[in-house]
Amino acid sequence: MKQVVTFGEIMMRLSPPNHERLTQAPALAVTYGGGDANVAAALVQLGQPAAHAGCFPANPLGHAAAEHFQRYGVDMQHCVFSENGRLGLYFLEVGASLRPSRIVYDRAESSFAHLDPAAFDWAKILDNARWLHWTGITPAISASAAQACGAAIAEARRRGLTVSADVNYRRNLWQYSQRAQDVMPPLVAGCDLVVCTEGDAEDLFGIRPAAGAPNSFVSMAEQLIARFPQIRQVIATKRETQSASHERIRGLLYQGGEYYETTPYDIAPVIDRIGGGDSFISGFIYGTTVHPADPARALAFATAASALKHTIAGDINLVSAAEVEHIVAGNTTGRLLR
Amino acid sequence: MKQVVTFGEIMMRLSPPNHERLTQAPALAVTYGGGDANVAAALVQLGQPAAHAGCFPANPLGHAAAEHFQRYGVDMQHCVFSENGRLGLYFLEVGASLRPSRIVYDRAESSFAHLDPAAFDWAKILDNARWLHWTGITPAISASAAQACGAAIAEARRRGLTVSADVNYRRNLWQYSQRAQDVMPPLVAGCDLVVCTEGDAEDLFGIRPAAGAPNSFVSMAEQLIARFPQIRQVIATKRETQSASHERIRGLLYQGGEYYETTPYDIAPVIDRIGGGDSFISGFIYGTTVHPADPARALAFATAASALKHTIAGDINLVSAAEVEHIVAGNTTGRLLR
Amino acid sequence: MKQVVTFGEIMMRLSPPNHERLTQAPALAVTYGGGDANVAAALVQLGQPAAHAGCFPANPLGHAAAEHFQRYGVDMQHCVFSENGRLGLYFLEVGASLRPSRIVYDRAESSFAHLDPAAFDWAKILDNARWLHWTGITPAISASAAQACGAAIAEARRRGLTVSADVNYRRNLWQYSQRAQDVMPPLVAGCDLVVCTEGDAEDLFGIRPAAGAPNSFVSMAEQLIARFPQIRQVIATKRETQSASHERIRGLLYQGGEYYETTPYDIAPVIDRIGGGDSFISGFIYGTTVHPADPARALAFATAASALKHTIAGDINLVSAAEVEHIVAGNTTGRLLR
Amino acid sequence: MKQVVTFGEIMMRLSPPNHERLTQAPALAVTYGGGDANVAAALVQLGQPAAHAGCFPANPLGHAAAEHFQRYGVDMQHCVFSENGRLGLYFLEVGASLRPSRIVYDRAESSFAHLDPAAFDWAKILDNARWLHWTGITPAISASAAQACGAAIAEARRRGLTVSADVNYRRNLWQYSQRAQDVMPPLVAGCDLVVCTEGDAEDLFGIRPAAGAPNSFVSMAEQLIARFPQIRQVIATKRETQSASHERIRGLLYQGGEYYETTPYDIAPVIDRIGGGDSFISGFIYGTTVHPADPARALAFATAASALKHTIAGDINLVSAAEVEHIVAGNTTGRLLR
Amino acid sequence: MKQVVTFGEIMMRLSPPNHERLTQAPALAVTYGGGDANVAAALVQLGQPAAHAGCFPANPLGHAAAEHFQRYGVDMQHCVFSENGRLGLYFLEVGASLRPSRIVYDRAESSFAHLDPAAFDWAKILDNARWLHWTGITPAISASAAQACGAAIAEARRRGLTVSADVNYRRNLWQYSQRAQDVMPPLVAGCDLVVCTEGDAEDLFGIRPAAGAPNSFVSMAEQLIARFPQIRQVIATKRETQSASHERIRGLLYQGGEYYETTPYDIAPVIDRIGGGDSFISGFIYGTTVHPADPARALAFATAASALKHTIAGDINLVSAAEVEHIVAGNTTGRLLR
Amino acid sequence: MKQVVTFGEIMMRLSPPNHERLTQAPALAVTYGGGDANVAAALVQLGQPAAHAGCFPANPLGHAAAEHFQRYGVDMQHCVFSENGRLGLYFLEVGASLRPSRIVYDRAESSFAHLDPAAFDWAKILDNARWLHWTGITPAISASAAQACGAAIAEARRRGLTVSADVNYRRNLWQYSQRAQDVMPPLVAGCDLVVCTEGDAEDLFGIRPAAGAPNSFVSMAEQLIARFPQIRQVIATKRETQSASHERIRGLLYQGGEYYETTPYDIAPVIDRIGGGDSFISGFIYGTTVHPADPARALAFATAASALKHTIAGDINLVSAAEVEHIVAGNTTGRLLR
Repeated sequence: MKQVVTFGEIMMRLSPPNHERLTQAPALAVTYGGGDANVAAALVQLGQPAAHAGCFPANPLGHAAAEHFQRYGVDMQHCVFSENGRLGLYFLEVGASLRPSRIVYDRAESSFAHLDPAAFDWAKILDNARWLHWTGITPAISASAAQACGAAIAEARRRGLTVSADVNYRRNLWQYSQRAQDVMPPLVAGCDLVVCTEGDAEDLFGIRPAAGAPNSFVSMAEQLIARFPQIRQVIATKRETQSASHERIRGLLYQGGEYYETTPYDIAPVIDRIGGGDSFISGFIYGTTVHPADPARALAFATAASALKHTIAGDINLVSAAEVEHIVAGNTTGRLLR
Repeated sequence: MKQVVTFGEIMMRLSPPNHERLTQAPALAVTYGGGDANVAAALVQLGQPAAHAGCFPANPLGHAAAEHFQRYGVDMQHCVFSENGRLGLYFLEVGASLRPSRIVYDRAESSFAHLDPAAFDWAKILDNARWLHWTGITPAISASAAQACGAAIAEARRRGLTVSADVNYRRNLWQYSQRAQDVMPPLVAGCDLVVCTEGDAEDLFGIRPAAGAPNSFVSMAEQLIARFPQIRQVIATKRETQSASHERIRGLLYQGGEYYETTPYDIAPVIDRIGGGDSFISGFIYGTTVHPADPARALAFATAASALKHTIAGDINLVSAAEVEHIVAGNTTGRLLR
Repeated sequence: MKQVVTFGEIMMRLSPPNHERLTQAPALAVTYGGGDANVAAALVQLGQPAAHAGCFPANPLGHAAAEHFQRYGVDMQHCVFSENGRLGLYFLEVGASLRPSRIVYDRAESSFAHLDPAAFDWAKILDNARWLHWTGITPAISASAAQACGAAIAEARRRGLTVSADVNYRRNLWQYSQRAQDVMPPLVAGCDLVVCTEGDAEDLFGIRPAAGAPNSFVSMAEQLIARFPQIRQVIATKRETQSASHERIRGLLYQGGEYYETTPYDIAPVIDRIGGGDSFISGFIYGTTVHPADPARALAFATAASALKHTIAGDINLVSAAEVEHIVAGNTTGRLLR
Repeated sequence: MKQVVTFGEIMMRLSPPNHERLTQAPALAVTYGGGDANVAAALVQLGQPAAHAGCFPANPLGHAAAEHFQRYGVDMQHCVFSENGRLGLYFLEVGASLRPSRIVYDRAESSFAHLDPAAFDWAKILDNARWLHWTGITPAISASAAQACGAAIAEARRRGLTVSADVNYRRNLWQYSQRAQDVMPPLVAGCDLVVCTEGDAEDLFGIRPAAGAPNSFVSMAEQLIARFPQIRQVIATKRETQSASHERIRGLLYQGGEYYETTPYDIAPVIDRIGGGDSFISGFIYGTTVHPADPARALAFATAASALKHTIAGDINLVSAAEVEHIVAGNTTGRLLR
Repeated sequence: MKQVVTFGEIMMRLSPPNHERLTQAPALAVTYGGGDANVAAALVQLGQPAAHAGCFPANPLGHAAAEHFQRYGVDMQHCVFSENGRLGLYFLEVGASLRPSRIVYDRAESSFAHLDPAAFDWAKILDNARWLHWTGITPAISASAAQACGAAIAEARRRGLTVSADVNYRRNLWQYSQRAQDVMPPLVAGCDLVVCTEGDAEDLFGIRPAAGAPNSFVSMAEQLIARFPQIRQVIATKRETQSASHERIRGLLYQGGEYYETTPYDIAPVIDRIGGGDSFISGFIYGTTVHPADPARALAFATAASALKHTIAGDINLVSAAEVEHIVAGNTTGRLLR
Repeated sequence: MKQVVTFGEIMMRLSPPNHERLTQAPALAVTYGGGDANVAAALVQLGQPAAHAGCFPANPLGHAAAEHFQRYGVDMQHCVFSENGRLGLYFLEVGASLRPSRIVYDRAESSFAHLDPAAFDWAKILDNARWLHWTGITPAISASAAQACGAAIAEARRRGLTVSADVNYRRNLWQYSQRAQDVMPPLVAGCDLVVCTEGDAEDLFGIRPAAGAPNSFVSMAEQLIARFPQIRQVIATKRETQSASHERIRGLLYQGGEYYETTPYDIAPVIDRIGGGDSFISGFIYGTTVHPADPARALAFATAASALKHTIAGDINLVSAAEVEHIVAGNTTGRLLR
C-alpha cells in the first residue's frame, strides 16, 4: 500500500507527572507530537504506511523529535534538519476533575517556522503516496510554512492523490502578516476531506448554519461543499466534556448528501486528551480506505479510535486496528484480556 | 492456629506504570504473584498463618519471587529451588476506561512446569496445616504439576484437612498431552469448597444450569455437589464490569441448600484488578473460619475483601481484617482516617 | 496590602505514590504542610501577602520545611529555629474508591510543641499585618503553643486586626494537662470569623442545634455568636464524601443574621484531599477582602477554591484567583486551556 | 543449622536519591536497618539461619520494618509490636567525593526505647540458637533496652551459646541516666567475640595501648582479653577513608595470641557505606563457623564481605557466600559475569 | 547585614537523569539557574542576605523560576514579570569519564533579553544593599540588558557599594549589534573585584601576560588593574579537568600587589559541575566579608566552597558556612557525619 | 551510501537502576539490544545507513524490540514477526567497584531460535547492501539460525559484499546438537574482517600462538588468515578491567602483515559496559570505510568509539562521528561543551 504523507511541525512536549502543576514539578515527562505527524504515526499502528515531512533544528532535540516518530514506523526520510531556529516546545499541565488541563506554548522561532519551502521537493516526497494530510496549524505558523503547504497540496492534486485537512482554526497562532481568512480558502479548496467544526467554518469562511436548519452541522457542511466543490466529506467530533477526567465524544460525517452520527462514547478517566482529534482523522483515513463504500463504518471506526486515544499516554494513538474493531464491536467494558 | 497451605506457580509481573503501553514504557514495575500464593499472603495479612509450596529457578529471579511472599509473612520453607527451567513472567498493561487491561504471558518452560513431584513431601508440608488450597491453573501447567497437586489433595484428605479450589478454567493454558476435562474431576472430587462459575462448570464438567432454573448459579451448584459429594460450599463473584476503571462485584454462595448473594460494591477507580478472585477466596477462608455458623457473614467478608483488593497495587490483598470489617460495616465512602 | 499572618506547626508529609500502602512503598513523596501555613501559602497564590510564624528544629528537615513555604512566597522571617525537639511528620496513605486515605501521625515531641512563647514578639510579627489566622490544632499541641496562640490573639485584638480561626477539634491531639473545653473558649472569644462545624461546636462548647431548628448550622451559629459576640461570620464546608476518589462539597456561611449556602461541586477523581479545609478558609479570607459587601460572592469564591484544591497535589492550594474565578463563573467541565 | 539470634532496634531509613540534599529532595528512598538485624539478614544471605528480636510500634511503619527483614529470610517471630512509642527514623544524605554523607537521627521515644524487658522470653527466643549477637547501640538506647540485653546475654551464657558484640560506642546516643562506662563492662564480660576499635576501648574501658607497643590494636586486644577473659577473639576493620566515594578497608583480628591483618580492599565508587561494619561481623560469624580452625580465612571472608557491602544499596549485605568467596579468591576486577 | 544584590537572567534547566543522552530520555529533571542568581542563593545558604533582580515571563514557567530562588531565601521582590518573551531554557546532558557534559541552549527571545531598563528602579533595589554583583553574560544578552546593567553599576558606585563581576566572556552569546569589546570596558571600570581568566582578559581587553612574566595570571591582573584602577581584587579558579567525572581546582587571587594560590582540591566523582564558578565568587564574597584583612583565608573559603559545589546537584551551592569551613580545616576525606 | 546489514537476535534487557540487585528492585529499566543490531544502530548514529534482519514474536514485546531499533534509524523492514516462540530476555545487574555486573539470561525458546530460514530472502535483503555483519552468537542459538546465517554469508559473497564477524565464542550458548567447532569454520571462511581474541581462536579453531612468538595476537592472526584466506583484517580490543567501574581498553589490528595497537583509554566511571565490543566493530566499519587506506586511523576511531560507549546508557552507542573524532583528537578530559 502507498503512503499517507503528512506535513507539519513536531514539538517537544514537557509535562509534569501525577497531575502536578508546572510550578511544583521536579521532573517533566518528555514526548513529542504534532497534529499531522500524530496522524501518520497512528496510521502506521493501524497498519497503513505513512511518511511525514517536517523541519527540525540540527541538534539533539530535533533529532530526538524525529526519532520519536521513526520509532513508531513513520518514514521520516523527507524531513529537513536546519541550522535556523529551535525546536518548538509545549508544556502541558494535566488537569483533573474541574481543573482544566492547560498548555503553555513555547514554539516561536522554531525551525519549522523558518523552513525554506524550496527544501521540500514535493514531487519526490509524494512519489510513493496515495494521500496527503495537513492541518490548519501549519499555514498559521509562518508565511513560508503556508507556502510549502500550498505547494504540497498543488503537487498532490496534480498526482491525483486524496487530500485531507483538519482546518483547526487557532486564532492566537496566526501572528505573521497574513490573515487566516485569506490564506486558508485556497488551501482548503484543494481538499477532498475536511475536519471542520461549525466554529471553524464561521471563523475561517464566514459560513453560518442557515437559520432554522434542523441540523447545524449539515447546514454548515452543505455550504462548505458548495464553496469548495472538491470536498466530498466533512467530518467532526462532537465533544460533551464532563470534566477534565471525563469526556464524551461522538463522530459526525456529512457525505453524498447524507448525515451520519455515532452514538457517544464515555471516557472516564481520561488518561491523555491530547491528540484526540488527530486520532479521529487517522481513524477515518483508515476506515474510509478499508470500507470505502460504507461511510458509517468508517465513521464508527474513527470515533472508536478517538475514544481509545483518550486512554493512551502521549500524543500518538498507539492502538492496533484490531483493538479499535474490538471497541466498534461493542466491547467497551474494558474486560481484562489474557 | 494451624496453617492454610497453598500450592502453585508464582510469576514475576512486569507492568508499565501510568497506564502506558508495553511498546512505550522505559521502565516496568516489578511485583510477583500467583493465584494460590496470593491467597496465602492475603490470609497472613488477615491474621491467619499460611504457607506456600512452589518451585522456583535457583537464580536471583527465583529468590526474589520467594522473598516477595516471605516479606508478607508466608512460610516459604517448603519451596523448592531447581536448576531446571526459568521463572515464569507475565507482562501486564493496565488499561483505563474502555481500553482493557491486557496480559502477555511468558511462562512456558518454567521451573514450576518442570517440577519433580517427588520433591514435595506432602506429609511434612501439611504437618502443621488445617487447610489446603489450590487453583485450576496448577494442574493446567504440566503433567507433573497436576500429579503433585493430586498428591497434595490425597494427603490432605488423609489428614482430614479442609480442601478448597478455585477451579478457574483457562483454555489456552492446557497445552500438555492431557485434557482439563480428564484431569480436573478427580482433583475437584477431593474438595470441600470450590470457587466455580457457570462457565467453568460447563467447560470442565459439562454441567449446564437446568433449563428454566430460577437461578442458574444455584442450579449449577446443585449439580456440582451432586457430582462431587465432598463439596459443601460453592462460591463465586459476579462481576458487572463497567469499564477497565470501574468494577461492580457481588459475592455468591451456595451451601446447605441455601443461596446467599451480597449487594454489590462499586469500585471506581480500580487501582489493580489482578488478584480480585484470590482475595475473594482468601476472604472466604478467613470468614468461614471465624464465623463457621454464619455463611452470610463469611460471604460478606469475602466480598468486601475482594472489593478492597481492587484498590490495592500488586497481586496481594494487603489489607487487615479490621479494614475489611470496616467495609462490611458499611463504611464505603472512603472517609479519611486520621 | 498588609499581610495575613498565620501561626502553627508545619510537618513533613511522607506519602507513597500511586496509591501504594506504606508497607509496600520503596519511596515516599515528600512535601510539607500545616493547617495554618497552608492558608498563608494559598493566599499568596491568590495575590494577598502573608506571613507565617512557627518553630522548627535547627536541622536540615526544619530548614526544608520552612523553605517549602518560602518557595510559595510566604514571609517566614518570624520563624524560630530551635535546638529543642524534632520536625513533626505525618505519613499519608492515599486511598481510592472505598478504601479510605489514612494518616499515621508522628508528631510528638516536635520543636513546635516545645516552643518558647517568649521567642515570638507579636508586636513585631503583627506590625505589618491586617489579619491573624490560627487553627484549633495549635493550642492542642502543648501548653506553650496554646499560650503563644493566646498572646498572638491578644496582640491582634490590641491592634484591631481581623482574627479568624478554624476551630478544628481533634480529640486525640489534646494530650497535655489541659482540656480543649477550657483552653479554646477564651481564644475563640477573640475571633471575628470562625470555621466551625456542628460537631466542633458540640464537642468544644457544648452547643447543640436547638431541637426542631429548621437549619441546624444556623442554630449552631446563632448560639456561637451569642456566646462569643466578637464573632461576625461562621463558615463551614459540608462534605458528602462519595468515596476516597469522589468528594462533593458545598460552602455554608452565617453572617449578619443571614444564611448562605452554595450549590455543591463534585470532584472526581480527587487528586489530594489534604488541605481542603485550609483552602476554603484562605478562599474566604481572599473573597471577603475583595468583596466585603457581598458575602455570597466571598462564599462562592471560598467553595470553588476548596473544590479546586482537591485536584492539586500537596497540602497547598496552588491556584490563582483567576483560576478560582473561572470555576465560580461556571467553567467546571475542565475544558483544555491552550 | 541452629540460628544466630540478634537483638536491637530497627529504624526506617529515608534517603534522598542521586546525592541530593535533604533540603532539595522531592522524594526519599525508603529502606530499613539496624546494626544487629543487618547482621542477621546478611547471615541468611550467606546461608546461615538467623532470627531477630526487636520491638516495633503496632502501626504500618512498624510492620513495614519487620517485613523488610522477613523478606530477606530473618525469623521475626520473636518481635514485639507495642502500643508505646514510634518507629525510629534516620535521614541519610549520601555525600560524594569530599562532601561527607550525613545522618540526621530521629529516633527518640521509639517503641524499642520503651520496650518492656519482660516481653522477651529469652529461654524461648534462644531455644533454637547457636549464637547471640548484639551491638553497643542497644544498651545505649534506654535502661530497659540495656536490661533486656543483659538478660539475653545471661541466658545465652547459661545455654553455652557463643556471644558476640560490636561494642560501637556512640557518645551522643547515651542520654538516659546511666553511663556507658558502667553499663557496658558487665555486658561485654559475657562475650566470646567483640568488634572493638582502639577508640572504643579507650572510651568505654579506659584501655589505652601500651606506650611503645609495636601494634596498638594488639596491645588493646591483649588488655581487653585480660579484663574480660571470656573474650577469645577481638576484631575490627581499619578504614582509610579516601573520600565519601572511595573507601579502603582491611580486617584485623587478635586471637589466641596471634595477630592477623588482611591486605586492603579499595572500593570506588562506594554505593552505600551504611552497614559496612555489620557486614564485617556477619562475615566473620559465617567465616569462623565454616573455618573454625583457620582464623585468617575467617578474617579474609569477613573483610571481603564488608568490601562487597560498600557496593550494595541499603543497610543489608545482599551477597551470597559464593560471591564473597569469589572476592576472597582474588577476583576483584569486577569482570562481567554472564 | 545588608544585602548582596545580583542582576541577570535565570533559565530553566532540563537534564536527563543517569547520564542519559537527550535523544533517549523519557523524562528530564527540572531546576533553575543563572550565573548571578546562583551567587545570591549560595550567599543566603552561607548566612549572608541577598536579593536578585531579573525579568521573567508572566506565566507558570516564569513564576516557577522565581519561586525556585525564593525557596532558597533570595529576596525576589525586585523581579519583573513581563508579557514579552519567554523563559530561557538550557538542556544539559551530563557526561561521564571522557564524554563531556554538553549544553544545548534555547534562550533566544527571553523576557530578560526583552527587558525594559526603565522597569528597574536601581535606587530602590539597592537601597538595602552593600554589594552589587553581575556577570559578563548579562550585557551579552541584549542592548537593553547591557543598559540596565550599566545603570545598576552607576547607581551602586553612587552609593558607595562594592561592585563585583564575573567577566565570563562567551563569544557565541554576543549576537546583538554591539561588540563585547566596546560594551564591557565601561562596565568593568566600575568594579572593585573581578573574576577574570587570562583568556577573558585577552578576548575582552586585549590584555596579554607580559612576555617572560614569571606568573601569567599576575601579569594579567596587574595590567587589568592598571587599566581599571577601581579594581582591587582579581580572582579566578584554575581548573585541571581530568575527566567529566574528575575535576581538580585551585583558587587564584591578586590583591594589593600580592599573589595567592591555594593547593588544589580533587573532586571525583563530580556530581554537578554547573555553577562551580558562581560558588567560587559567592564563597569569596562571603570570605572577604568575614575576613576582610585575610585575603588568603577568603580565597581558601572560596575555593573550598567551589569544590563542594561540584558534589551538589543543581546550579545552586546548597552548603552552609560550617560545611565549607569543615573542608577548609582539612576534612576532605568525606567521613560519615552522624 | 549502501547499507550495512546485520543479522541476529534482539533481546529485551531488564536492569535494576542505581546498582540495585535483582532481589531488591521494585522497578526495572527496559531497553533492547543484540550484538549485531547494536552494530547497525551505532553505524546509523555515525552517519552510515544500516539494516537489520531478525525474528521477533508477533506480540507487543516483539514490536517494542523492533521499534527500539527503528527509533535509532535502523531499517527493520526485513524483520519477521512470528507466532513461534517468545522474546528473549536478559536481566542485568549493574555492579560497582569490585562487585561485577551480572547477567541472568532468559533467552531459551525465542522466536529467533525458532526462525524459519526460508523466511529470509537474502537476495532481497542484501539488494541495497555493501556489507554484511554477523556475530558468533547467531549460529550458537539454533541450527536454523546457523543455517540462515550461512545463507546470508553465501549470498553476500555471491554479490561481492564485505563480510565481517565478531566470532565471540560463548561456550554455554551452544546447546543444540551441533558443535561450534564444526559450525563456525565454514561461516568464518566467508569473512573479510573478523573480531577474534586469542581465546576465541583457540576454542573455536584450535589456533594457539606460536611458542615464543613476540606478539601472541599477531601470531594468532597470521594463523587465522592462513586458515581462512578470505580474511584480510583481524581486530580485537584488549581490556585491562580495573573494576566494574573502571575499564581500560586498547584496540588491536592485524592487516597486510602489519600490526597496529592504540594507546589505552581509561574509562572511570563506566556507565554501561554492555555493547562495548559492538561499538568497537561498528567504529571499525565506519573508520575503514572512511579511511580505507589508513588502518591506524580506522583503528583509532574504533577504539575511541568503544571507549565512549562505556559512558552511554543502554546497548547502543549513541554517539556521532564528530564526537568520536573529538576523542581521537585527544580531547579526553571531558571538558564541558556549551
